[in-house]
Amino acid sequence: MKRVLVIHGPNLNMLGKREPEVYGGETLTDLNEKLYKAADQRNVQLECRQSNYEGEIIEWIHRAEEEADAIIINPGAFTHYSYAIRDAAASINKTIIEVHLSNIYKRETFRHESVIAPVVAGQISGFGSKGYILALEAIAGEDNNE
Amino acid sequence: MKRVLVIHGPNLNMLGKREPEVYGGETLTDLNEKLYKAADQRNVQLECRQSNYEGEIIEWIHRAEEEADAIIINPGAFTHYSYAIRDAAASINKTIIEVHLSNIYKRETFRHESVIAPVVAGQISGFGSKGYILALEAIAGEDNNE
Amino acid sequence: MKRVLVIHGPNLNMLGKREPEVYGGETLTDLNEKLYKAADQRNVQLECRQSNYEGEIIEWIHRAEEEADAIIINPGAFTHYSYAIRDAAASINKTIIEVHLSNIYKRETFRHESVIAPVVAGQISGFGSKGYILALEAIAGEDNNE
Amino acid sequence: MKRVLVIHGPNLNMLGKREPEVYGGETLTDLNEKLYKAADQRNVQLECRQSNYEGEIIEWIHRAEEEADAIIINPGAFTHYSYAIRDAAASINKTIIEVHLSNIYKRETFRHESVIAPVVAGQISGFGSKGYILALEAIAGEDNNE
Amino acid sequence: MKRVLVIHGPNLNMLGKREPEVYGGETLTDLNEKLYKAADQRNVQLECRQSNYEGEIIEWIHRAEEEADAIIINPGAFTHYSYAIRDAAASINKTIIEVHLSNIYKRETFRHESVIAPVVAGQISGFGSKGYILALEAIAGEDNNE
Amino acid sequence: MKRVLVIHGPNLNMLGKREPEVYGGETLTDLNEKLYKAADQRNVQLECRQSNYEGEIIEWIHRAEEEADAIIINPGAFTHYSYAIRDAAASINKTIIEVHLSNIYKRETFRHESVIAPVVAGQISGFGSKGYILALEAIAGEDNNE
Amino acid sequence: MKRVLVIHGPNLNMLGKREPEVYGGETLTDLNEKLYKAADQRNVQLECRQSNYEGEIIEWIHRAEEEADAIIINPGAFTHYSYAIRDAAASINKTIIEVHLSNIYKRETFRHESVIAPVVAGQISGFGSKGYILALEAIAGEDNNE
Amino acid sequence: MKRVLVIHGPNLNMLGKREPEVYGGETLTDLNEKLYKAADQRNVQLECRQSNYEGEIIEWIHRAEEEADAIIINPGAFTHYSYAIRDAAASINKTIIEVHLSNIYKRETFRHESVIAPVVAGQISGFGSKGYILALEAIAGEDNNE
Amino acid sequence: MKRVLVIHGPNLNMLGKREPEVYGGETLTDLNEKLYKAADQRNVQLECRQSNYEGEIIEWIHRAEEEADAIIINPGAFTHYSYAIRDAAASINKTIIEVHLSNIYKRETFRHESVIAPVVAGQISGFGSKGYILALEAIAGEDNNE
Amino acid sequence: MKRVLVIHGPNLNMLGKREPEVYGGETLTDLNEKLYKAADQRNVQLECRQSNYEGEIIEWIHRAEEEADAIIINPGAFTHYSYAIRDAAASINKTIIEVHLSNIYKRETFRHESVIAPVVAGQISGFGSKGYILALEAIAGEDNNE
Amino acid sequence: MKRVLVIHGPNLNMLGKREPEVYGGETLTDLNEKLYKAADQRNVQLECRQSNYEGEIIEWIHRAEEEADAIIINPGAFTHYSYAIRDAAASINKTIIEVHLSNIYKRETFRHESVIAPVVAGQISGFGSKGYILALEAIAGEDNNE
Amino acid sequence: MKRVLVIHGPNLNMLGKREPEVYGGETLTDLNEKLYKAADQRNVQLECRQSNYEGEIIEWIHRAEEEADAIIINPGAFTHYSYAIRDAAASINKTIIEVHLSNIYKRETFRHESVIAPVVAGQISGFGSKGYILALEAIAGEDNNE
Repeated sequence: MKRVLVIHGPNLNMLGKREPEVYGGETLTDLNEKLYKAADQRNVQLECRQSNYEGEIIEWIHRAEEEADAIIINPGAFTHYSYAIRDAAASINKTIIEVHLSNIYKRETFRHESVIAPVVAGQISGFGSKGYILALEAIAGEDNNE
Repeated sequence: MKRVLVIHGPNLNMLGKREPEVYGGETLTDLNEKLYKAADQRNVQLECRQSNYEGEIIEWIHRAEEEADAIIINPGAFTHYSYAIRDAAASINKTIIEVHLSNIYKRETFRHESVIAPVVAGQISGFGSKGYILALEAIAGEDNNE
Repeated sequence: MKRVLVIHGPNLNMLGKREPEVYGGETLTDLNEKLYKAADQRNVQLECRQSNYEGEIIEWIHRAEEEADAIIINPGAFTHYSYAIRDAAASINKTIIEVHLSNIYKRETFRHESVIAPVVAGQISGFGSKGYILALEAIAGEDNNE
Repeated sequence: MKRVLVIHGPNLNMLGKREPEVYGGETLTDLNEKLYKAADQRNVQLECRQSNYEGEIIEWIHRAEEEADAIIINPGAFTHYSYAIRDAAASINKTIIEVHLSNIYKRETFRHESVIAPVVAGQISGFGSKGYILALEAIAGEDNNE
Repeated sequence: MKRVLVIHGPNLNMLGKREPEVYGGETLTDLNEKLYKAADQRNVQLECRQSNYEGEIIEWIHRAEEEADAIIINPGAFTHYSYAIRDAAASINKTIIEVHLSNIYKRETFRHESVIAPVVAGQISGFGSKGYILALEAIAGEDNNE
Repeated sequence: MKRVLVIHGPNLNMLGKREPEVYGGETLTDLNEKLYKAADQRNVQLECRQSNYEGEIIEWIHRAEEEADAIIINPGAFTHYSYAIRDAAASINKTIIEVHLSNIYKRETFRHESVIAPVVAGQISGFGSKGYILALEAIAGEDNNE
Repeated sequence: MKRVLVIHGPNLNMLGKREPEVYGGETLTDLNEKLYKAADQRNVQLECRQSNYEGEIIEWIHRAEEEADAIIINPGAFTHYSYAIRDAAASINKTIIEVHLSNIYKRETFRHESVIAPVVAGQISGFGSKGYILALEAIAGEDNNE
Repeated sequence: MKRVLVIHGPNLNMLGKREPEVYGGETLTDLNEKLYKAADQRNVQLECRQSNYEGEIIEWIHRAEEEADAIIINPGAFTHYSYAIRDAAASINKTIIEVHLSNIYKRETFRHESVIAPVVAGQISGFGSKGYILALEAIAGEDNNE
Repeated sequence: MKRVLVIHGPNLNMLGKREPEVYGGETLTDLNEKLYKAADQRNVQLECRQSNYEGEIIEWIHRAEEEADAIIINPGAFTHYSYAIRDAAASINKTIIEVHLSNIYKRETFRHESVIAPVVAGQISGFGSKGYILALEAIAGEDNNE
Repeated sequence: MKRVLVIHGPNLNMLGKREPEVYGGETLTDLNEKLYKAADQRNVQLECRQSNYEGEIIEWIHRAEEEADAIIINPGAFTHYSYAIRDAAASINKTIIEVHLSNIYKRETFRHESVIAPVVAGQISGFGSKGYILALEAIAGEDNNE
Repeated sequence: MKRVLVIHGPNLNMLGKREPEVYGGETLTDLNEKLYKAADQRNVQLECRQSNYEGEIIEWIHRAEEEADAIIINPGAFTHYSYAIRDAAASINKTIIEVHLSNIYKRETFRHESVIAPVVAGQISGFGSKGYILALEAIAGEDNNE
Repeated sequence: MKRVLVIHGPNLNMLGKREPEVYGGETLTDLNEKLYKAADQRNVQLECRQSNYEGEIIEWIHRAEEEADAIIINPGAFTHYSYAIRDAAASINKTIIEVHLSNIYKRETFRHESVIAPVVAGQISGFGSKGYILALEAIAGEDNNE
């Protein structure tokens, strides 16, 4: 049974409260519940965490080397400047998938570049909370070829 | 029953022959078969096309306004400069998903910018042929909330 | 009697259907009819064509060396990157006028630069379909000084 | 009867004396006479002014809110850096058309960008003095659809 | 009793008429009255002027060396390119405070850079007409430490 | 009675010890005392905090949604790169004022850009500790028009 | 006997007619005849084609995998932006030589960068039609070391 | 007898008062007296003027076409952005020499570019008031070869 | 006896596990042991710490004002964007030496710029763990001239 | 009989020893012998020289005005910054051909620009030592049209 | 009696032969004779040298510390990239004047920047050989104020 | 016994005379003596040379392939533009260490980039003459692990 760690980055605890025209009305609790249910259906063991601290996210990634088989990460605004998270991602041998709720290419210019994307397996952006489930699907389906 | 048009852009007819270290050994025929099968499982009516002509791709997008409910497009190298395809995509009212086989953010700098991404619903990159199936999943699952 | 070739570039066949808040509700057929009527009033022999293919537009320009006295071209999105159309325009000895329906300087940054403008006689932008008629007026009035 | 204000920017008083290979031999007086005649033919009430002072041009634009229905402006070199004229243009609710005698896209790089274009209705460049008449035509023809 | 010169730059005479969604409905006369009243309360001798001429503003700054103890300046669009006003500001030994009605960092990119800011004491932006009163407060309060 | 949260960013705990030629000799304790006194005079309930942790500042901003009516923030060096703090500021519906002790436009180039300014109400820079009091004044005076 | 495919890109059909001060008076027919003769002398089997369509050029390159031993390509203006032709060239295992009639480094800035050069064997520019023969010579001489 | 017009640009009326560490203690009156004396010695008829108005400087340049044989201009801060003065300088057929008191290449980056230099005969910078005399010398000596 | 604080930045706890082709197989524990031994030989009192938290590193630097005579810091990925650590380094009066295990100039472009280097005494990069010992040597040898 | 000067620039004396994976195992002596033989076959009088001194190369070019009919130059790394060699090349009236052993467009970015190319007749890159022979061929064949 | 060293940089030995449309027909010998004569008239002891070697120019500058009172240097193309000559110029305590025959601001973009100008006393460009005499005049006149 | 070549680049012969506020009062002779002594203590055979000629430095590097085991180089201003020295350094198989007396990251922007650093083993900057001794220490200590 695969173990997957979901890391929600800075400000995602405000989901559903913050800029609903961009992110929708679903809260982080709602989202996580949806993810746990989807994981169950796919026989995946999931753990969801959220942090506003770059250092804490780095350490979760480090520990995932031992504690998880894959990471789904939405680095929030850290996407655009945290070379430290990039180095953390590059330091472990696990599948990492980068997810963004909104289509970051439709937004401010600074959101168009991800400094983390070059070291992860793939990126999914623009599908709202569905994006996390697609990432889960990608991880769950790694063993078969559908 | 949803109708989905898959558009493979330039050079994708060389899939499996071209730079296998980047794109793998699967041919376009293999990929399309996999997609038709996945579409059947999801009760989606699929049509796959490939073109090396920007103009032809533009016209397929125009006609999709009538003939399809959604488009999955891998614009190949056109991703990085075809503002004409971008305008075509913006001219219709259908869900469009941009897919890339490889993680374009791991490759040459010119591949990091998609001029098409700002007008589509979402982008999936780095999952190989699996990326198309995730896109299909996203379209098929639009009606329920999983 | 002057012969004028009007070339409508990519996506202009979608006129009236596409982004009406930008381009208005008039279709390409409506626009062409208006142009033919205006040409008649000015004793000009007009021919209107539309293509989504860069190659086809290039060849129409080449043939205009023999078949027309002037060209009115709205290169659509090709305006911003088709150096091949620029070279075609530079290769003939005819008056060429570049027309844009919308004021391209009010829109996305990539639309601010025309790679074709440096080799044409003049540019008219922002007057909607009226812009084509101003171009026609400029060509028709070349022989007198008003 | 429409009232139109024509504003000639800096150095246009030198027209016909200055760089005739770029601007031709016609003087500003010649040009204005041609414009008054063309306005008469179109039943438009015209007033032509010239200034080398940015501040004076700004104030003419302000007063046009009361005194004119439309402005035709050739901002000369102010085109490329006068954000103050841009703000003046944005501060009134009148049709403003930007005209350039030469095709500014064929000249030095600094002439390729107009800081004023994003706040006017349209731009006409490269038609010599004919460009002003096309602008007049555009204004005169606003009420009918030709 | 401190003497303070308030300089309103180009287009500020249009205040209340121009782009009310950005600048509000208060006119320059309203604003000046509010400032004179606030100055009285703080025992400051105020003089308010407005000019659309860069040259006139430069000369007001020069004369302030003799005629004032401090300057509050809203350079309008000159903020972004008038190195001549910058040099004028650097040429006198008086406290100068730069004020902007709107938050210039929320607007077009060209408004993000002030060429004048590096030579003034401080900058206040985004507080509407209140910003001038904060500047007055800063000047009036210079002698005590509150 | 309004509740205002003052957030001092990284290194401000070194105030009075660090680069006195830039920041003066006043310590953070001195500054806070001055602020509490000024708040009392204006009938404002103040709370001052300092953190060197980006994550902690983000969470204080989040909680201010419930616990404060306005925020005065000096983001220190985070001003120039913390898109995560920017997102936090954008996620709440409170007046936020950005304050800098020194005139950041007189210093190194990297200090000229604030990534946070585009999402706050206003910015005050260059007035030393007086800047915080001006910000307080702006908040306290919101209800009357002076 | 080696098979070599010569691909002339967009606008080369205008050779001899277009901008003779840049490209000389020789037509494409003249040039091809010279090439066929030179191929005969070197015991090479030659085929010359010209297209103004990017898509057609891409497909000729794909088919060369089967039908030719080497390609000599003058991509015309596509040199500077056709990443799709670049990908086509990278997709086959044949020697490809890029030829330009004029010295592209003496011309407009946009002509100084070739997006295709990084994936071909070598580039020859500035020798007029002689450049193609040098390319032929390079291919013909591959087997001996002269 | 040669007639030379000396134009001092914005803020030069502050000479001797403004930033003496950069410009020295000599006033504009002192400088002009020195120039008149030097002109006498070289049998040149001199006229010195100063303006803070771009428009006035433009008109002085225009009139110099009739009234002078050469111009010595120190455009002050207009050096760096006044394309309108550049166009004025290009519009007359007289020798124009650009002079700067300080070595502009030792100062802020924005002072390193002169938009006027490309259209004048020569530039002299860094010699203080002596630079004007060198310019006078260059003009006076034009007729002999020393 | 000199007191030296060694600060290892983010991800250095992964040393020996992470990208051994870049950083070698030595762990952080191994490295620290080597450093303690080298410090003993040079009669230096050493303390080694590691943190993935920018805020914690800032506070260690602040406290070093009291607790250490010099700092050896490898800021890891913070090197390239942490202006907050830069400000911390500038806020104390101690010798600080920046060390990098790998030659950062051989790696990705973003690693070529250190925002911290301008405020430290010196930088040593490319010598692996030996670099720390060279830094120690530099500090130990400050009192004599070897 | 044509006289051709071959100039090998800096580090080419290391050919065959230096980076053989880039430049192959052939030494400069081997290369020159091949060139002398090829010159004999084409009835050309050749002289080959190598220098690591920019100044010496400049003087060889100057003297070629008298001593040679054409130059073949591989400027090595000087290609990318020696404007002095560029000026030397522009100062003589001889055919100059620039040759590079490797395809410089496949290598580091700084090698993509040649400051010398704009003043030479043509450039050949990517053909190894064969490139020099193609250059020789181009010079030898100048008199006939093959 | 002042000793002045004139240094002519690379390619100036070609003066009169090279690009006469830019530099005129006067040779370096002619120019030096004119300079020696002008020096005699001003009671200055002159020595003129020319070198195409950056290293030699550096050493002449070093020795001028002992052997000269001032340097007049035309660094030729080294102007634009020789930071080593810049450092040499900064290393001595003598007046150095930079002279250019042509107006470098009218020529190619790369000639607009002088890396040497920031460390010399002044720059004179565009006066042909007269520029050296103006420089001599500036040096000779240093002791009196004319 | 290891043989180490120390190469001092341009202007280092002026050490102790040139800009002592940047480089200190120690002369090159003093520095070399210190280095010979330090080499003796470490049982290293040292040779120190200085050149202002790029070509000479290139040749010393080439010969080091035979004559030395390692190079310590301070390329002076060549650091920032000599791609030819970079290529020389890349052409030999010896340990090369780049040393700078001053912290180049504290100085002018052009000194922040080293074109040589990407091909050497490591870089040491900011330690004055001590930096050379650290480099020596690094080379001497290569065989043991301290």
